Amino acid sequence: MRQILIIGAGKSTSVLISYLLNKSETENLFLTIGDLDIEHAKKLSQDHERCKAIVLDVFNKESRESAIKNADIVISMLPARFHIEAAKDCIKFKKSLVTASYVSKEMKALDQEVKENGLVFMNEIGVDPGIDHMSAMKVIDSIRDKGGKMILFESFTGGLVAPESDTNLWNYKFTWNPRNVVVAGQGGVAEFIQEGKYKYIPYHRLFRRTEFLEVEGYGKFEGYANRNSLDYRSVYGLEDILTLYRGTIRRVGFSRAWNMFVQLGLTDDTYTMQDSMNMSYRDFINSFLPYSPTDTVELKLRHNLKIDQDDIMWDKLVELDLFNKDKKIGLENATPAEALQKILSDKWTLAEDDKDMIVMYHKFGYELNGEKKQIDSTMVLIGEDQTTTAMAKTVGLPVAIATLAILNKKISTPGVQIPITKEVYTPILDELESHGIVFKEKEIEYLGYNPFGGVGN
Amino acid sequence: MRQILIIGAGKSTSVLISYLLNKSETENLFLTIGDLDIEHAKKLSQDHERCKAIVLDVFNKESRESAIKNADIVISMLPARFHIEAAKDCIKFKKSLVTASYVSKEMKALDQEVKENGLVFMNEIGVDPGIDHMSAMKVIDSIRDKGGKMILFESFTGGLVAPESDTNLWNYKFTWNPRNVVVAGQGGVAEFIQEGKYKYIPYHRLFRRTEFLEVEGYGKFEGYANRNSLDYRSVYGLEDILTLYRGTIRRVGFSRAWNMFVQLGLTDDTYTMQDSMNMSYRDFINSFLPYSPTDTVELKLRHNLKIDQDDIMWDKLVELDLFNKDKKIGLENATPAEALQKILSDKWTLAEDDKDMIVMYHKFGYELNGEKKQIDSTMVLIGEDQTTTAMAKTVGLPVAIATLAILNKKISTPGVQIPITKEVYTPILDELESHGIVFKEKEIEYLGYNPFGGVGN
Repeated sequence: MRQILIIGAGKSTSVLISYLLNKSETENLFLTIGDLDIEHAKKLSQDHERCKAIVLDVFNKESRESAIKNADIVISMLPARFHIEAAKDCIKFKKSLVTASYVSKEMKALDQEVKENGLVFMNEIGVDPGIDHMSAMKVIDSIRDKGGKMILFESFTGGLVAPESDTNLWNYKFTWNPRNVVVAGQGGVAEFIQEGKYKYIPYHRLFRRTEFLEVEGYGKFEGYANRNSLDYRSVYGLEDILTLYRGTIRRVGFSRAWNMFVQLGLTDDTYTMQDSMNMSYRDFINSFLPYSPTDTVELKLRHNLKIDQDDIMWDKLVELDLFNKDKKIGLENATPAEALQKILSDKWTLAEDDKDMIVMYHKFGYELNGEKKQIDSTMVLIGEDQTTTAMAKTVGLPVAIATLAILNKKISTPGVQIPITKEVYTPILDELESHGIVFKEKEIEYLGYNPFGGVGN
Repeated sequence: MRQILIIGAGKSTSVLISYLLNKSETENLFLTIGDLDIEHAKKLSQDHERCKAIVLDVFNKESRESAIKNADIVISMLPARFHIEAAKDCIKFKKSLVTASYVSKEMKALDQEVKENGLVFMNEIGVDPGIDHMSAMKVIDSIRDKGGKMILFESFTGGLVAPESDTNLWNYKFTWNPRNVVVAGQGGVAEFIQEGKYKYIPYHRLFRRTEFLEVEGYGKFEGYANRNSLDYRSVYGLEDILTLYRGTIRRVGFSRAWNMFVQLGLTDDTYTMQDSMNMSYRDFINSFLPYSPTDTVELKLRHNLKIDQDDIMWDKLVELDLFNKDKKIGLENATPAEALQKILSDKWTLAEDDKDMIVMYHKFGYELNGEKKQIDSTMVLIGEDQTTTAMAKTVGLPVAIATLAILNKKISTPGVQIPITKEVYTPILDELESHGIVFKEKEIEYLGYNPFGGVGN
């Protein structure tokens, strides 16, 4: 039997494990799920005869090495910063490795050794990064193959709540790590290029510089800029591209409302607040407003953020019960971001039968025979339930498919890599289609940002 | 002769050196000015027979030790982070030390050793920190002496341009390190307490939450919050105080205009911009505005910041020549803050005959015999010329006076300390008065923020 070791049994591993167990007879596989939490790993193993759960502490050399030594291939589903020790052991014991995380500097530095040992270290093979790379490179390669020259690439992804479970004014619930949602966009300026001009958006303006997107059958969305758009120039070979923009998708109106939190300072994660344990939701909001001997927190907030009497933004705040005197934050030494997450979790946690949704939108602008053209490519996936979520499918399936393909030597080019070559993305995208992860591509009129070719600003 | 070693011959040392040279005969002093730049140190030594300049590299152990060994007392005018090695040598060779910098953790950790050796390490004895400590503690001690209980302390300081040299729309010129002005308020939230309520202002709101101040004979000013107000509770023994606020003084309207830069993202110092060398002032501004094929940078900025047609803020931008296509930033790998500093320096550099001004404003609220009272204390000092600036006087004189007092054992309590005891501040404040640094105190009606004693928010 061929041994697959899965390190880290997080939320998004259920689909990954089910996929591999389904194929375990025909492909002759045995899965070992290693996690610090043995109970959780056991639950995921489904009492399957071709699967076992073990305690694995990635910081314990012996525990790590003995597990990796016995595997034929290793999947690490740990947070990105924990991969590196497992990666080094994979080289030592000559095992290939699959992760859904961004390639860190440390991981990249292993490339030469990985190649010398003929191993495949496949990273960024989840949803974003992952499916975005593959679906984008497929279109970019097809444009190049017919002699086109890329002039614009915009790419948006969002993890949202499915329309049938969309029951609040924010059109949003936490479908993955709430903390990442609260601090999204922090830690650096959003930098991108539009018609050859570099543009920078500071964090406190990010949620007011959105663009609209429309997906057939699903209505209107909006996107705000990610921080790292320019990195994709070298990754996708788009060095000369005039417009390059990557963004995060939300339902229309979310960002304008979220901006209220940003403006008040509620998303700050860099300092802890005084007595956050006993602070009420109302106290929390009031901390960010000027003192008044008489005026209410409500009116101070309306005035501070210039919210008109009849603005729906106000209802969004009320829906969150932000002004409640009795509900406590109840967290020791909480940062504003942690306190806000607590308040949002009351209302934005998925209910038992809620479903999630992944939306992806790419725009490809190119020149062919002197003509400007555009292809838009969209994908929407709705989760089945709280286990087989759209997130777990779009992260887990590409990881599982790639793992099997490496094991079967269908993906064999060695090195530390991401899924941007035809060898890799073609079979994976094909198989994803059979799981309902389908991109709809259509040629549209080229839009761009400078239709008449003027100087532009 | 008693040997005084001055390490670091920066801008603000001229007055310090002149003061000590004037007293060098009567007090039997000899000054050694040590700096990496020997020419600059020589210039400051004024060819005085009781003064010499030496090359001193504070990171070179031999150079540092030999200079300190020969001194009777050491003054370090280096930036705060460079004091610590000199401080350790001072303990080794049993020399007292004077600095105008905030006490760092490393400096504080030396307290026990300093005491054991009977030395005085006097820090924070410039203007702010320094004169603010002394003038505030004098009033606080007098209130306590008569049995009053402090309920409010607000303290503001500003380094500004003198009214007679105030020739631009911003009512501001660079009278000290321009870099510190550009990044002021960054690196942490502004936290303070008002009527017992903790308040937090994030950086991007800081310049819109100002308070007005009026100084007799000098008109109206405004203040924005400093980051560290709460630190002063323990420093001044104000643990139970209801209102504690420290701020920076500007002329009215400065902060509202500066906020335009903050909103655009021009003050960010955390990343470098693409091709900042060849970027024009206009390109720089445009980088922070949405792309448009047709609209001008001017209109985009007006729209983005919602600047009305007839708003004086617009003229403030135009005065800086921000939209110039031909003027280049001309700096390699500049951060936005560095590029902005370059633009501002064109217009805000002091002219040959310009004078600077230091303004300080303290408010002390207290309860005495069941009655609420308030004392306001203000100080304004205008510089004499570009050498004897108000900044150089208010930083240099307290340092010089303290140094002599330590040498003459008038200040003798050992330890790492700041000037908050009567022993220290009384003689220094008295002597500062003879140099024109005079605080005007007046009793006024108690203002506070909750005059009717309601609940407050």
